[in-house]
Amino acid sequence: MKDSCEPCELSATEALHRIAAGKLTSMAWVESCWDRIAAREPDVQAWSYLNPDAVTQTAARTDQRHGPSIPVGVKDIIDVCGMPTMMGTDFHDPVPVSREGGSVAIMREAGCLFMGKTVTTELGHRHPGPTRNPHNLAHTPGGSSSGSAAAVADFMVPLCLGTQTTASVIRPAAFCGIVGYKPTYGDFDKSGILANAPTMDTLGIMARTIDDVGLLRAILLEETPQAIADMALSDVKFGLLNVPPWNTAEPETRRVIEALADDLAGAGARQVDVAIGDQVTRLIELHRLISGYEFGRSIAYERTRHLDELSAVLREGRLADGREVDSRRYPDLIREAAFLRASLAKAFTGVDILVSPSAAGPAPASLESTGDAAFSAAWSLAGNPVITLPLFQATDTAMPIGCQLIAGFGEDEKLLNVSQAIMTRFQS
Amino acid sequence: MKDSCEPCELSATEALHRIAAGKLTSMAWVESCWDRIAAREPDVQAWSYLNPDAVTQTAARTDQRHGPSIPVGVKDIIDVCGMPTMMGTDFHDPVPVSREGGSVAIMREAGCLFMGKTVTTELGHRHPGPTRNPHNLAHTPGGSSSGSAAAVADFMVPLCLGTQTTASVIRPAAFCGIVGYKPTYGDFDKSGILANAPTMDTLGIMARTIDDVGLLRAILLEETPQAIADMALSDVKFGLLNVPPWNTAEPETRRVIEALADDLAGAGARQVDVAIGDQVTRLIELHRLISGYEFGRSIAYERTRHLDELSAVLREGRLADGREVDSRRYPDLIREAAFLRASLAKAFTGVDILVSPSAAGPAPASLESTGDAAFSAAWSLAGNPVITLPLFQATDTAMPIGCQLIAGFGEDEKLLNVSQAIMTRFQS
Repeated sequence: MKDSCEPCELSATEALHRIAAGKLTSMAWVESCWDRIAAREPDVQAWSYLNPDAVTQTAARTDQRHGPSIPVGVKDIIDVCGMPTMMGTDFHDPVPVSREGGSVAIMREAGCLFMGKTVTTELGHRHPGPTRNPHNLAHTPGGSSSGSAAAVADFMVPLCLGTQTTASVIRPAAFCGIVGYKPTYGDFDKSGILANAPTMDTLGIMARTIDDVGLLRAILLEETPQAIADMALSDVKFGLLNVPPWNTAEPETRRVIEALADDLAGAGARQVDVAIGDQVTRLIELHRLISGYEFGRSIAYERTRHLDELSAVLREGRLADGREVDSRRYPDLIREAAFLRASLAKAFTGVDILVSPSAAGPAPASLESTGDAAFSAAWSLAGNPVITLPLFQATDTAMPIGCQLIAGFGEDEKLLNVSQAIMTRFQS
Repeated sequence: MKDSCEPCELSATEALHRIAAGKLTSMAWVESCWDRIAAREPDVQAWSYLNPDAVTQTAARTDQRHGPSIPVGVKDIIDVCGMPTMMGTDFHDPVPVSREGGSVAIMREAGCLFMGKTVTTELGHRHPGPTRNPHNLAHTPGGSSSGSAAAVADFMVPLCLGTQTTASVIRPAAFCGIVGYKPTYGDFDKSGILANAPTMDTLGIMARTIDDVGLLRAILLEETPQAIADMALSDVKFGLLNVPPWNTAEPETRRVIEALADDLAGAGARQVDVAIGDQVTRLIELHRLISGYEFGRSIAYERTRHLDELSAVLREGRLADGREVDSRRYPDLIREAAFLRASLAKAFTGVDILVSPSAAGPAPASLESTGDAAFSAAWSLAGNPVITLPLFQATDTAMPIGCQLIAGFGEDEKLLNVSQAIMTRFQS
């Protein structure tokens, strides 16, 4: 990246390098992000709450000779001390929180500076908030981590926390043209986060580079950040996941994913056949049933006290799905999901990475819907780590098209190493 | 039960029958519980917060022709609107909560009246609170759901919520001589509850009868309560779980569990051999590692801000265990636990119920420790439903000795039906 750019345009990794080298100060970095937010927020509307003390907190830390402050945003279903948690509704009490989520506390200890809370859809489901896609304000940013994706894409902050129950990290990241990463289920703590469906709820990362994903992953795991190495593509075995819902993807999206597969093969990666169509189809249906049943309980407070204030899409969507399940059927569904996870683990012994669309197409030209979630649901329930890479754009609208990579359960390092190699190849 | 007893001595099921028959009013029931609390709380110290509006809330509901109010207590790591959540510490902000847990909201909707919050150990771990065992005030009530077990045992309320990560429902219920029930993992919603180790944290029920367990279970599942039928013991296949930690149980505890097995066989139940010793041993070790790792993240807020205010047993116990695990080892442990769950599912195809001690012995004569957890840890991680029944008492001290029954994953109805048959047999 050119030396003359604004600090807010830097990745966190690059900014930290410059701070360590004495070429940038935390204050200049945070102020640049703050100015960017001030300039762009009226259009993008990525934030539900802005921390009025962000700049003075940075100054205070600098005075006390702490390490650098890393400006970040947090999806507004996650508790951060001193800030309200509104969850995309207007009926919750806007009282500042006094105990924050485990991952937030860990990030704060590591020097993260919370610039504010980012817009979420209603209770993390589908009814959209006010956020717009920075690439074209008439297009949806995706959801439910709408504000986190838009804020990172628009250079307001280098990193945000999002969460995924169905597609809520991958889809908005793909629509906004950034990197979105959902780790292996359970890898990051999710205390202090509004539950939607605990069997699949996962905390994820929005970033613009793989190094930044690795940086925040290391922080969240309380491990020492290390540079993410390229994996030699000639060592990679990959599969093209052209099983349903592949047929529902737009033609151009299918073409770019096939182009990526061809490019990987051209770089020496070995394409293998992976026969998991039946498992994926069944996981998507199990996801609908399990997430619906669990959602109805997780939001019982809102359902019993504020039902009339909830959107029709919430009441007639996931809540209705959940009523197809009762307490006798539920453990059977959970057992079946565990069986399918074991079956996928066997399939992944023969392949490193699966390549798939991140969504059916680029962000639709609408603010009424956050788009289709079918390409992520199976992996949310299976618990595999996934990432979306901003490798292509639509020929007609120039809107980003994301490519989703999927690795075996627990193979997050491999996923990031392959992602780094692909990003390097596409940027060179 | 004799007609002349105080209403607070009734099971909830019996009280509701009397209310339906016009022989008891909600107000008389709630006032009787309230009076019992007032009389006994100085000795037992089961409550960390008492709802000053309990009686007037009952009157208001009665005026509005709602159904009856069911007086209950809630472990003080669970959020209840209008009450503080202190989690067994003195440094949390005692601000009334404005959004409550999903299970609490569901119970409120069904007519439960929250009498207050019950004492928990520090953050749900081992450092004890002030609660004493109602059977002998010099003995521990067990933990971490100490106040919930003591309040139910002492007839202050018929039902309480507890939670179990290791043994925190089964052990205090056994020590206090009541029924404690941990359902199949995931059966009850656990939003709004302090996380300890999400892979095994489970909401459970403290009661004095199986019917009351069934009543609150139905409420939590939003299903219609039905009487719990006895399962014919001649149809039951059971196993005696005399594998480690069996050898660490006190001789009298081993004798009474063997006596229960003999009695079941005498009633026509068929005893079968179940060879799962290796799985149980490994699950206990996996429980130690996984719960330690997850606990360190779940309480990151307290660990990063209040470390000096935490007890030595917390810092040197579970937190230290967690440091044996890192992010590379953790998914391997999770995968191994899933494999063992599948292995246990196969074992349970040949047996309905396993019989085991609930703890190594009756409640120790000490208020410094909450006792040994080894007999519950495996089942907390495996996710099987378990119950402790108050069938015996120690010959020297007359302290209760609980018997633990374990059923297959999802076999909660069978567990309650067999429990009902055994309770009926022992009470007749």
